[in-house]
Amino acid sequence: MKQLPEILKRTLVASSRFFNIEAVQLKFSNGEQREFERMQGYNQGAVLVVPFYDEHTLLLIREYGAGTHSYSLGFPKGLIDKGELPEIAANRELKEEVGFGAKRLQKLKTVTMAPSYFSSEMHLYMAFDLYPEQLEGDEPEPLEVIKWPISKIDELLAREDFQEARSIAALLLALKTLKQPV
Amino acid sequence: MKQLPEILKRTLVASSRFFNIEAVQLKFSNGEQREFERMQGYNQGAVLVVPFYDEHTLLLIREYGAGTHSYSLGFPKGLIDKGELPEIAANRELKEEVGFGAKRLQKLKTVTMAPSYFSSEMHLYMAFDLYPEQLEGDEPEPLEVIKWPISKIDELLAREDFQEARSIAALLLALKTLKQPV
Repeated sequence: MKQLPEILKRTLVASSRFFNIEAVQLKFSNGEQREFERMQGYNQGAVLVVPFYDEHTLLLIREYGAGTHSYSLGFPKGLIDKGELPEIAANRELKEEVGFGAKRLQKLKTVTMAPSYFSSEMHLYMAFDLYPEQLEGDEPEPLEVIKWPISKIDELLAREDFQEARSIAALLLALKTLKQPV
Repeated sequence: MKQLPEILKRTLVASSRFFNIEAVQLKFSNGEQREFERMQGYNQGAVLVVPFYDEHTLLLIREYGAGTHSYSLGFPKGLIDKGELPEIAANRELKEEVGFGAKRLQKLKTVTMAPSYFSSEMHLYMAFDLYPEQLEGDEPEPLEVIKWPISKIDELLAREDFQEARSIAALLLALKTLKQPV
């Protein structure tokens, strides 16, 4: 295993209600020094759930994203509350965003977003054996829930509004795990 | 298509050498108002390349990420320079980070990172017909380049240090496009 760079100094350089940015002075094992900026992570991490409505059908949500100022298709997701287990958070987000609970969750993988700048981790799950249960979320408007046939995955992947890397990774990992031909 | 929320106000709330964070006041079509924070994107976007060394072998790099303070495996990637075409940027990053140019690039998809907070887009490519050519990059240390057999993709996906969602999405999209059984 390669020797990690030494962190010589960390400085909080910008801060808002939601984000903290720090400058990190690093000394690499070859003696090279650099200053990078990175975002302090939300420590609890996040979850994303690929919900199987039945063996032929996935559930998607259409949600507004302020970052892109657009509506896009994706899977239910959200931040883990303090003290909450990831599986519990996954089921809670499912209930809040698509109106179903899951009797069975299967972990796919833990992923990061852009390791150069962010530490945030997201745990990806599949959800099976769904039953109707709606929890109140904090969404500004009700999310549109869409049933998508697994046979039309290529169409989904070709859509410009299905573009979040974490949703794409979760979808393809799920189909691979279930040995669907993808 | 759903009516986009109206942006009532945008305020720059925090700023560093690398990041600009703005607060956005939104009015949704149902009348609901919210303030979200988002990061102003790097307008040129970024590229990521899945390099095929031969039909059985991919090239990976092992790179330090300041965000996670760890070394991880992934594909060559980087920001597009001003005025640079994405394909040119892809080939440049390939030459800088793995020491090969590509005679043929094939676009996989354009992805986003987390549409709630970021606008940044990344264009994913496959690279074929490689030839040795090293360009000087801005890396603090030489990147380790690893030949990975496509037959051992499951092993790669199971590794904790292969965890970036955009690399996973690109890999699985590439294999799907090439109709490898994944």
